[in-house]
Amino acid sequence: MPKVSAAHVETRRRQVLDGARRAFARYGYEGATVARLEEETGLSRGAIFNYFENKWALFYALAQEDHQRAGELWLDRGFTAVVQWVLEQSPDWIGVYLEIHRMLRTNPELRAQWETRNPELDERLRARLVEQQQRGELRRDVSADEIGRFMGLLIDGLVLNASVGQSYEVDALLKLVIGAIGPQ
Amino acid sequence: MPKVSAAHVETRRRQVLDGARRAFARYGYEGATVARLEEETGLSRGAIFNYFENKWALFYALAQEDHQRAGELWLDRGFTAVVQWVLEQSPDWIGVYLEIHRMLRTNPELRAQWETRNPELDERLRARLVEQQQRGELRRDVSADEIGRFMGLLIDGLVLNASVGQSYEVDALLKLVIGAIGPQ
Repeated sequence: MPKVSAAHVETRRRQVLDGARRAFARYGYEGATVARLEEETGLSRGAIFNYFENKWALFYALAQEDHQRAGELWLDRGFTAVVQWVLEQSPDWIGVYLEIHRMLRTNPELRAQWETRNPELDERLRARLVEQQQRGELRRDVSADEIGRFMGLLIDGLVLNASVGQSYEVDALLKLVIGAIGPQ
Repeated sequence: MPKVSAAHVETRRRQVLDGARRAFARYGYEGATVARLEEETGLSRGAIFNYFENKWALFYALAQEDHQRAGELWLDRGFTAVVQWVLEQSPDWIGVYLEIHRMLRTNPELRAQWETRNPELDERLRARLVEQQQRGELRRDVSADEIGRFMGLLIDGLVLNASVGQSYEVDALLKLVIGAIGPQ
């Protein structure tokens, strides 16, 4: 019997993730039962949980992908690109994050895992902010950490609002952000 | 039989609201059953629903109180006071807001009611921002509406983070906010 190729594994893993993303957006985290995950992925539960240990691991992998994408957008194309990306997400998918937040709130173990879902990327983002401070593109009287937290706060606010479909005037928002973090 | 005095009505209404706030924080919105509302308020279901039509009306009244309080803090003591007030709220109570957001997301009728929960206060806040722009205390190249939305975004971000108990360096945050909305 031929061994399953790495490419095949990757294709299947992708199929599971894409289907799970649809299932979570449509039914919510709790509502995404194994039967519904099977339906949306087109794969059996055996196949699905061959790639991911459980439902949480599946959602966590999707959240890691989002985090990675947002971080790379930020590094490659700036904060504007991140804001636009958040505003383009489906409110249904964003709603799943709010559901997750409730779980994190009462489960310190999950929360610790969540907060360190991409330390390497977080470090690159932090280094970028420090660089920008050194080049005089960002204010220096507030630490890079506080600037990063502030940007995260704005993203979280956008996420909360995007979950109910509220839109923003991106230009005005960015003017305000530049005022906040730019050289004073 | 003597008529129930207005003061008595107000005391009872207060008792219902305070007990309900505890029940929601402790059990979540869904988890705050009628039995638990009775337990926390110390009143019968008959008494509770004499003051509020249903559980939603009860939560809505509490959210209106919060909104009123935040708005008045803003008007009387500035944005700093609002930020500090948010950070002082119990994560459990804030968690209820996230739960509510999920309901609002899929119920346009509730959402419309929610967004207009205090139009008179919103108007006063807007007028204050315009005044501050005219006095040169706030930037004028972004509309008062956009400035207000930006502040709301930050508050929402703080709320989302406060729900998992994350804290902030208030001084750094306020420096950034002043940079954003102050005269440029």
